[in-house]
Amino acid sequence: MSRKTVGMINIDPLQTGGILTPEARSALLQWGDGYSICDFCPGTLNEIRTPPIHDFIYGALPEFLGTDHARVTNGAREAKFMVMHAITDKGDSIVLDGSAHYTSFVAAERAGLKIKTVSNSGYPYYKVNPEDYAQIFEETKKDTGKLPTLALLTYPDGNYGNIVDAKHVAKICHEYGIPFLLNGAYAVGRMPISAKKVGADFIVGSGHKSMASSGPVGVLGVSDEHHEKIFEKSEFFKVKELELLGCTARGVTIMTLMASFPHVVGRVNLWDDEVQKAQWFSAQLENLGLKQLGDRPHKHDLMFFEAPNLYEISQRIKDGRYFLYKELKNRNIHGVKPGLTKLFKLSTFSLSRSDLNVVIEAFGDIIKKYA
Amino acid sequence: MSRKTVGMINIDPLQTGGILTPEARSALLQWGDGYSICDFCPGTLNEIRTPPIHDFIYGALPEFLGTDHARVTNGAREAKFMVMHAITDKGDSIVLDGSAHYTSFVAAERAGLKIKTVSNSGYPYYKVNPEDYAQIFEETKKDTGKLPTLALLTYPDGNYGNIVDAKHVAKICHEYGIPFLLNGAYAVGRMPISAKKVGADFIVGSGHKSMASSGPVGVLGVSDEHHEKIFEKSEFFKVKELELLGCTARGVTIMTLMASFPHVVGRVNLWDDEVQKAQWFSAQLENLGLKQLGDRPHKHDLMFFEAPNLYEISQRIKDGRYFLYKELKNRNIHGVKPGLTKLFKLSTFSLSRSDLNVVIEAFGDIIKKYA
Repeated sequence: MSRKTVGMINIDPLQTGGILTPEARSALLQWGDGYSICDFCPGTLNEIRTPPIHDFIYGALPEFLGTDHARVTNGAREAKFMVMHAITDKGDSIVLDGSAHYTSFVAAERAGLKIKTVSNSGYPYYKVNPEDYAQIFEETKKDTGKLPTLALLTYPDGNYGNIVDAKHVAKICHEYGIPFLLNGAYAVGRMPISAKKVGADFIVGSGHKSMASSGPVGVLGVSDEHHEKIFEKSEFFKVKELELLGCTARGVTIMTLMASFPHVVGRVNLWDDEVQKAQWFSAQLENLGLKQLGDRPHKHDLMFFEAPNLYEISQRIKDGRYFLYKELKNRNIHGVKPGLTKLFKLSTFSLSRSDLNVVIEAFGDIIKKYA
Repeated sequence: MSRKTVGMINIDPLQTGGILTPEARSALLQWGDGYSICDFCPGTLNEIRTPPIHDFIYGALPEFLGTDHARVTNGAREAKFMVMHAITDKGDSIVLDGSAHYTSFVAAERAGLKIKTVSNSGYPYYKVNPEDYAQIFEETKKDTGKLPTLALLTYPDGNYGNIVDAKHVAKICHEYGIPFLLNGAYAVGRMPISAKKVGADFIVGSGHKSMASSGPVGVLGVSDEHHEKIFEKSEFFKVKELELLGCTARGVTIMTLMASFPHVVGRVNLWDDEVQKAQWFSAQLENLGLKQLGDRPHKHDLMFFEAPNLYEISQRIKDGRYFLYKELKNRNIHGVKPGLTKLFKLSTFSLSRSDLNVVIEAFGDIIKKYA
């Protein structure tokens, strides 16, 4: 039951944006007990004023997301499903980018939607072309007799960390009158982003991935145009919103999100430094014979590497494909999945240059050791 | 951002079963960071072996619930919605007991179901008669041309703490071939309960309400007959279960649930003591002129009181209906909602007799003070 990676340098993209702030650690202890936040419940989570959940949900959060309305959810995937379930009917179509996270597919399947994808360009850049959305909208209409009910873009995607021109996608969606959902699970809380500036009708973020919160928790921003449908209320219990099942992140998860929020609002302003650090790190690994796939120059901390030299080593040594994981572990580094050597992703977010230097030197040492 | 009720005697029914064990407090700190439990993710939450989530979900949990299959969910309401969404179609009917929690209504509304209710007997006992399920099934068939697709019983209900003969309800459901869901949000983790012994197809529990866990988290038990439909997998990602959106309680919430679990398994065996304590407490408050509504003798720690004497006081003093809340607060007691004097609920679960004596004496003092 103890966490084995405590104290290690963790470069797993799932982990770098979710490390708690000291304020969130304090919130954990204060609000750990079950339904602690409901001590002074006035009928629904969003209205709780002690602690100040109401002000967060109706004030700070929508401002941060650049949306008219916002809610805290049990996660980004749950927020995506809420939108799909509320504004589509079974049998409708949805368009996803070909680099979409598996949860976008699964949420759409759960909502009974036909899924169409905008392919990416494949190896080595995996680019999604905004113009292709128009083509897939037309194809969908031709195939099903009806335009899709929703379009989604992953910004950035969770494999290559690619940043697509979301404004361009939004413009095309609006030309077709198709609501546009921006999945910012790796953006919101890491980099500056505003749904209004992009032109997105919906924006989704992940607390545990990118907002220094305990899991699972997410955020959902909704434009005025769609908010009545998304936040439709119960016929029997007038304050309860159906898609939220009344209340969502009713516990310690929302408290860590709120406790870390001031820090998170501040850190997105340091995004340029994060991008520079990622590019510097990528260049160092490329000097060692690895190749960074996806956007070049890269514009996000999440990066995907191809390592023919490490793969070649794995083919001829006793530990086989587990050698890289073990060698990194011996050097106090976690985050490259056990068994991977040829293709793997990692993240430099919020890690110091000195910690990243340890990682770079580790890769160098390992390559030299097996040369 | 600090919790104002820390250190108080908390008799709020939402709170008494969710207080963390020392083991869960330690888990909070170990696993607080975002996606910490996914350090060694093999593809899906249920399969994680470090920490031992796999063994919990496939071994300990279904055994505890008395079911063939079990999952951890984001809460009891999310588990109920999962079942409804998976096994019903929009426009189908569901039968709820008239004492059902609001989340059962809201989940059914979200799933697009017609809701029929089995009325309770009203003041003062609020009893639900199992035989009435048959009558409502027949009525539903007459009104809609089709039997309901699902029936639900709240065991106990969240207002009066009444225990209905669930086996009897299960028998009737099976006679009609209608799947039966037992909502045990105030049972699982407090008292011994087995879905198989009851004859329930589904059982739902709440981690933050009754299993000494951080919120939000719940459990779902499913019989073999229904598990393929409930746990249907994605067409695109073969290990991902649609109704779970791949993974549910992916963070600190499941870790507190697991950390407290050995204690919770043990405490349900002390249930007879809890019931005796509740009955003793109820008798003491009745000696002070209050009246306990619902089942008599009472069989659960959640109790509803009518207090004409406290109400009478509230009518003639300056603080009005807030006096009881304030007087209890001054005596370090929390849990009766601000503004209530005539009718309110409370819980004695896991509180010591000496703490409950403080509560009894407080009520006595307050009544005497304003006599």
